[in-house]
Amino acid sequence: MQTLHVELGDRRYPIFIGSHLNINELLLPYITGHQVMIVTNDTVEKLYANTYQQALQALGKTVKLCVLRDGEKYKNLENLNLIFDALLQAGFNRDCTVLALGGGVIGDMAGFAAASFQRGVNFIQVPTTLLSQVDSSVGGKTGINHPLGKNMIGAFKQPSVVFADMAQLKSLPPRELSAGLAEIIKYALLGDIEFLAWLEMHMDGLIQGDEALLAEAVYRSCAHKARIVANDEKEHGERALLNLGHTFGHAIESYLGYGVWLHGEAIATGMVMAADLSCQMGWISEADLIRTKVIFQRAQLPIACPPIPLEQFLEYMVHDKKVLNGQLRLILMKGVGQAVITKEFNLEAMKQAIVNNQLKE
Amino acid sequence: MQTLHVELGDRRYPIFIGSHLNINELLLPYITGHQVMIVTNDTVEKLYANTYQQALQALGKTVKLCVLRDGEKYKNLENLNLIFDALLQAGFNRDCTVLALGGGVIGDMAGFAAASFQRGVNFIQVPTTLLSQVDSSVGGKTGINHPLGKNMIGAFKQPSVVFADMAQLKSLPPRELSAGLAEIIKYALLGDIEFLAWLEMHMDGLIQGDEALLAEAVYRSCAHKARIVANDEKEHGERALLNLGHTFGHAIESYLGYGVWLHGEAIATGMVMAADLSCQMGWISEADLIRTKVIFQRAQLPIACPPIPLEQFLEYMVHDKKVLNGQLRLILMKGVGQAVITKEFNLEAMKQAIVNNQLKE
Repeated sequence: MQTLHVELGDRRYPIFIGSHLNINELLLPYITGHQVMIVTNDTVEKLYANTYQQALQALGKTVKLCVLRDGEKYKNLENLNLIFDALLQAGFNRDCTVLALGGGVIGDMAGFAAASFQRGVNFIQVPTTLLSQVDSSVGGKTGINHPLGKNMIGAFKQPSVVFADMAQLKSLPPRELSAGLAEIIKYALLGDIEFLAWLEMHMDGLIQGDEALLAEAVYRSCAHKARIVANDEKEHGERALLNLGHTFGHAIESYLGYGVWLHGEAIATGMVMAADLSCQMGWISEADLIRTKVIFQRAQLPIACPPIPLEQFLEYMVHDKKVLNGQLRLILMKGVGQAVITKEFNLEAMKQAIVNNQLKE
Repeated sequence: MQTLHVELGDRRYPIFIGSHLNINELLLPYITGHQVMIVTNDTVEKLYANTYQQALQALGKTVKLCVLRDGEKYKNLENLNLIFDALLQAGFNRDCTVLALGGGVIGDMAGFAAASFQRGVNFIQVPTTLLSQVDSSVGGKTGINHPLGKNMIGAFKQPSVVFADMAQLKSLPPRELSAGLAEIIKYALLGDIEFLAWLEMHMDGLIQGDEALLAEAVYRSCAHKARIVANDEKEHGERALLNLGHTFGHAIESYLGYGVWLHGEAIATGMVMAADLSCQMGWISEADLIRTKVIFQRAQLPIACPPIPLEQFLEYMVHDKKVLNGQLRLILMKGVGQAVITKEFNLEAMKQAIVNNQLKE
C-alpha cells in the first residue's frame, strides 16, 4: 500500500492506495462522530455497500445508506436533495460523516452534500472507479450539473481521507477503465513526458486491469494533481492546467447530453482537439499529435466525436467556466508534457481543430 | 457614516453604516468583474432595485435582476435554483458579483447561491431590514430551509462588503423593525449590560425609527458579533452564544410553519424561555427575568408563544443543529449580559420554562 499526503495547510489528508485496504485500521480514525451516511448508487450498492456498512457497524457506528440512481444524468439538484432528505430523516447532526462510495458522480454529489449539510460535515471518499480515484480524490471540487452547464453549482470540499482500493476496480466495465486512463494520460500530457513513456510501455497491462500497475498509475497521477492543487487550491492559476481537453470535452458532453459519453471519453477527444490546435499553432510537431492520438487509441478511447454543428459546439464552449469576461482561454500544449493556459491562439485554427476531429456524417 | 471592519484573516471586509450611502464611491470598488446579479424580492424590488441597477449600469456594469417572492417560506431549494437559472441564462461567469438586496431571506439565499455558483463568486450584501443589518451582515452564514429543519443546508460565505443604509428602513413595517430590535437586544443580554442600559434609555426613539439611534444600535451589535465571529468563524465554540433563544425560537418557528412568526419574534420569546430557565436554575434573579421581558415588550415583541404540545416542542428542539451526539446544549444566562453554553440544566425546569411562556388556550 502507498500513502499520498495532500498538503492543504490545516486540511492535510491522506490518500491510501492499494488492494484490499483495511477498513478498521485505515478508515476508522477519520470518522469523528457516531453517525455515518454512506452515499452510493444502485450499481455499487450491490457490490460493496454491505462490506462498509457491516465493518463500520461492528465498530459501533450508526450507519445509514442513501442509494441514488447510477449515472451522470442524475447529478442534479433533485437527487442532491435526496441526500439531504436521508440525512435529516435519519436525524443526523453536524458531527456526522458523509462517506461517498462510488464514482465521480457520487463523489461530487456526496461531497457537495457534505459541504452544505449544516454548512459542512465530515467527508470521506471511497472512489470505486479508476477515473474518480485519480480525478475526484484530489482537489476538493464537488458539485452538480444544471441544464445550462456542467458542474455549475458546487463547493470546494476537502475529504478527511480517500480510500483508493484497486481490488474494487475488478467489477469496473472496460469502458470505464478506459475513461479513467484518459485522465491518467492527461497528467502525462500536461506535465510529465517520462510518465507518458511509462504509460506507453505499460498500456497493455493497464488495460488488462493489472492492480500493481494501476496502483502505480493512480499514485503518480494523484501526486501530480496534489502538487498542482496545493499550489493553487481555488483555481486562480496553475490549477487550470488540469482542464486540458475539458473545454472541448464539456462541449461534446453538453451536446450529446450528460452521460451519453463518459467524461473520460469526452476529454480524450477534447485533448486530441487541443493537441490538434497546438500542432496548427506550430507548438507541437505532427509526430507528437500522432503520438497523442495513439496513446488514447491504445487505451481504447475515442479520438473523434460525432458530428456537431460548429455553431453549437462554440456556444457550448463559451458556457464553460474557463471563459473570463467573454475572453476564451484554452489549455494547450507548448510541447508534449508541457501544457499552458493561453488566450493567444488563432480562432480559425481552433474551429479547424474541432472539425478535424469529428466523425464524418 | 461609520465603518466597521470585520477581521477574518485574508477575508477582511467593511460594513458601511449610515444614511443615504454613496453607491458610486463605496460600492464600486468591491465589484471586481463586469457582471452583477441583483437578487431581491418582489417587495424590495419596487423600492430600491432601480436605484442600484441604474447606478451600477451608469458605472458600466452589466446588471441583471433576479426577483424572488417575498417570505421565509420561499427560502428553499426550489427558489435557490431560480437564482442559478438567472445566472446561467444571463451567461454570467465566475467573475460575476451576486448582490443581495433585501432582508435575511434574500441574504441567505443569495449568499448560498454566491457560495455555490461556479463553486464561489463575489458576494455583496445590501441588507434592507434592521434584522438583516445586524444579523446577516456579520458571520457569513448562508443557507436554505428543508421541510425537516431550518437552515439545514448552506455554506459559510463572507461578503466582500456590506452596505447598511438606515434610510432604507423608512419603508420597513413596524413589526419588522421590532424583529430587528429583538436581535439587537440579544447582543445586550448575551454580553453587554451597558448596552442593555443604553437600549432601555433609547427604546422609544428606536421604535420610532430615529436613524441616528438605529445606526448606533446596528454598529454596536455588528461590532459585538464581529468580535465573536472573528474568534470562532466556523462555530466550534464561543459563536454558539449568538444562538441565545434560538433553540427555543426555532421550535416555535418550525411548529407554526416558517414565516408565520418573524424570526425576531420567535427568538424574543425564545430568549424569554432561556431567561426563565436561567431564573429557575438560580442563575439570574426574578427581577432580571422581568427586566428581560420588559425590554422585549417595549420593543413591541411577543414574550409568549401560542400553545404548542410539549412533546412536539421538544421534538423540534432536538432537530436543531445545537444537538451534539444527542446531548442537548442550550445558551443560558449566568447573569444579565453574561450568556453561557451549557448542557448542565434541569430538564424539568426546561419543560417548565416552555410551558410558562405560552399563551393559555
